Amino acid sequence: MKRISVDMDGVIANVYSQFIQMHAAEFGEVLPSAAIEGKPEKVAFLNAMKYVTSPGFFLDAPVIENSQAVMQKLNEHYELFVVSAAMEFPASLPEKKSWLVTHFPFITWQQIVFCGSKEIIKADIMIDDHFKNLDIFSGETLLFTQPHNILASAGRHTRVNSWNEIEQLLLS
Amino acid sequence: MKRISVDMDGVIANVYSQFIQMHAAEFGEVLPSAAIEGKPEKVAFLNAMKYVTSPGFFLDAPVIENSQAVMQKLNEHYELFVVSAAMEFPASLPEKKSWLVTHFPFITWQQIVFCGSKEIIKADIMIDDHFKNLDIFSGETLLFTQPHNILASAGRHTRVNSWNEIEQLLLS
Repeated sequence: MKRISVDMDGVIANVYSQFIQMHAAEFGEVLPSAAIEGKPEKVAFLNAMKYVTSPGFFLDAPVIENSQAVMQKLNEHYELFVVSAAMEFPASLPEKKSWLVTHFPFITWQQIVFCGSKEIIKADIMIDDHFKNLDIFSGETLLFTQPHNILASAGRHTRVNSWNEIEQLLLS
Repeated sequence: MKRISVDMDGVIANVYSQFIQMHAAEFGEVLPSAAIEGKPEKVAFLNAMKYVTSPGFFLDAPVIENSQAVMQKLNEHYELFVVSAAMEFPASLPEKKSWLVTHFPFITWQQIVFCGSKEIIKADIMIDDHFKNLDIFSGETLLFTQPHNILASAGRHTRVNSWNEIEQLLLS
């Protein structure tokens, strides 16, 4: 059974929605796509670091469309792990665990990894929205489209724009 | 550079000291070695689960002798990761991170992993006190002696009784 490492932020947890909402609450403007595309989150959102360290930022993040249904199917055909490079923000760890219990109850605690660098992860397939994680992974790599990576060439990675595309690739 | 995965509880963090102290506080008796040797922590300590979920259990754990000095040297010659199967107890996660920052300040957040199962860990050497982690690891395995494993044969693993022995093995 092949093992998949699935990222949280930007792959199953919609952190952009949180950034946009908190930016709008602080500055009174909803940033248009053009203002955030191709930019790292820290650049696109002036106070990004303040937002990610706010209580509730991770706990209240919406679920990315169709991720629950497709993850539930993947869980039957693969060794599924949720792997989040969350160690930079230790206060987020219980929030992220709690979020997973709420939205992905079929993922057991044995299937969750919070790390700093993903170079220590041993899996066959990695789904992530960040090149820094995919580039150091030797297996099959799926780049999940998010505003920060949307303008870049996927290079050796396979770009996926939705969980429906992941379902097509890994379950058909 | 070879990568080492070092366990926390029972390898660098002295959780037995915490168990023994909390048991003594609750029942008025310091358990003798004979009462805990060869038994899983959950069996040796009647209320073990209550203790590990108490605030401060992980935060206040003493450091295992010589682990700091030897870890600091290992950090110069190996890719060092601290890997703790901590996901069962999410409230412990910030405590464990904070404990590491306090006692092992040379370990960066990029070098820390909190997981459920260690089967996803890719490294060359694993130091752990639990057979369940070492048995599924394909690299070099060091079994750190603790009361629960002291009566067992180390099997294919190399038993180490102290951080001085680890220093001899990995740094001489």
